[in-house]
Amino acid sequence: MAAPSRLVDFYFDPISPYAWLASRSLERLEGTGLRIRFVPVLFAGLLKAHGNLGPAEVPAKRTYLFRDVMREAARHGLPFSGPPGHPFNPLTALRMCTALDDDEQRRKLALALFAACWEAGEDISDVAALPRLADAAGFDGEALLTRAATPAVKQALAAATDAAIAEGVFGVPTLRLDGELFWGGDRIETLLWRLNGGAIDEDHLAAFLARPPLAQRPR
Amino acid sequence: MAAPSRLVDFYFDPISPYAWLASRSLERLEGTGLRIRFVPVLFAGLLKAHGNLGPAEVPAKRTYLFRDVMREAARHGLPFSGPPGHPFNPLTALRMCTALDDDEQRRKLALALFAACWEAGEDISDVAALPRLADAAGFDGEALLTRAATPAVKQALAAATDAAIAEGVFGVPTLRLDGELFWGGDRIETLLWRLNGGAIDEDHLAAFLARPPLAQRPR
Repeated sequence: MAAPSRLVDFYFDPISPYAWLASRSLERLEGTGLRIRFVPVLFAGLLKAHGNLGPAEVPAKRTYLFRDVMREAARHGLPFSGPPGHPFNPLTALRMCTALDDDEQRRKLALALFAACWEAGEDISDVAALPRLADAAGFDGEALLTRAATPAVKQALAAATDAAIAEGVFGVPTLRLDGELFWGGDRIETLLWRLNGGAIDEDHLAAFLARPPLAQRPR
Repeated sequence: MAAPSRLVDFYFDPISPYAWLASRSLERLEGTGLRIRFVPVLFAGLLKAHGNLGPAEVPAKRTYLFRDVMREAARHGLPFSGPPGHPFNPLTALRMCTALDDDEQRRKLALALFAACWEAGEDISDVAALPRLADAAGFDGEALLTRAATPAVKQALAAATDAAIAEGVFGVPTLRLDGELFWGGDRIETLLWRLNGGAIDEDHLAAFLARPPLAQRPR
């Protein structure tokens, strides 16, 4: 019997262009014995729970962010088109992903919606467009849209978001391996380092985090 | 006559462990014909001006951040000790750097204070420790501390922070080449790509940024 593969959770919301970029770099984790599970979470829910601001909610950061996304896309040979407006409401898209129980199917739809939004410039907040986009990816779009509107699926997305918050997830994309978080596509490299035996002194980290602040910024 | 070297501004505040990590990666920019100028700015001033939160001001992000810093330090072979408390007041350290007009001297002091704080675990908010640390780096620490307390130097740091804000700088470390920003040590790679002729479609970026939002998160 083959050893069970280790699981990596990939927390995503298609509202994040960095989640899109990371979704296109996950092949680097293949062949390592890892199984990647796409976990749809509502980014706005993470921000609210942590009292955090999204990067696109700070004007100078928003301006920088999309330049950065376009540069990183160009560097990695990915076509950037971008949705017709941002931010947009990703709820229905997230729920359609949530409605798929099979990991591979969910991943396939998520990748299709990421590409539709960020590469092809589709509006994935548009409930008229979503079934067509799901159809094009090999799904029954109308059936999926119907399931996305059920209380069970709505509740499942909310529960997944709450569970992520409880795990300390504050942003997307986040990868999670054995309870350890890796935030941002840039940290795929660090996850691989960890897999190869890289480690930190956990006692030192805990002691450092327990040190009281020497000053606080007045707010 | 040799062609004048192109200037890269490195905006930093020693309060940021990511600025420390980036300061140890700048050698990658050497030999490219670039001249690096260390520009001390008050990170708290950037946050206030942009209405932004520092990463260590969101508890879950703070916990993650220092794990991430320790992992990245380990990955790059850098010893992490960390200051006796964080955040701390970096004003005097920043002003001592500001007091040095010569770029090389300023860089030398900044690197020494980064190392003292993050590698050796010194308290660089302690005005009793700072002259000793500057002495050890080859400066006249007491003279520098005295100059750091002058209105001219205080004003110069405030002016540098305001100028950075006007350039769109919202965090540290930020590198700036020909008016273009690169935020975070991970983007040294992108700056090199840019130097080698990498480019984005500026008209596309401008058009994308001008698109109205399709939804807004209630806050």
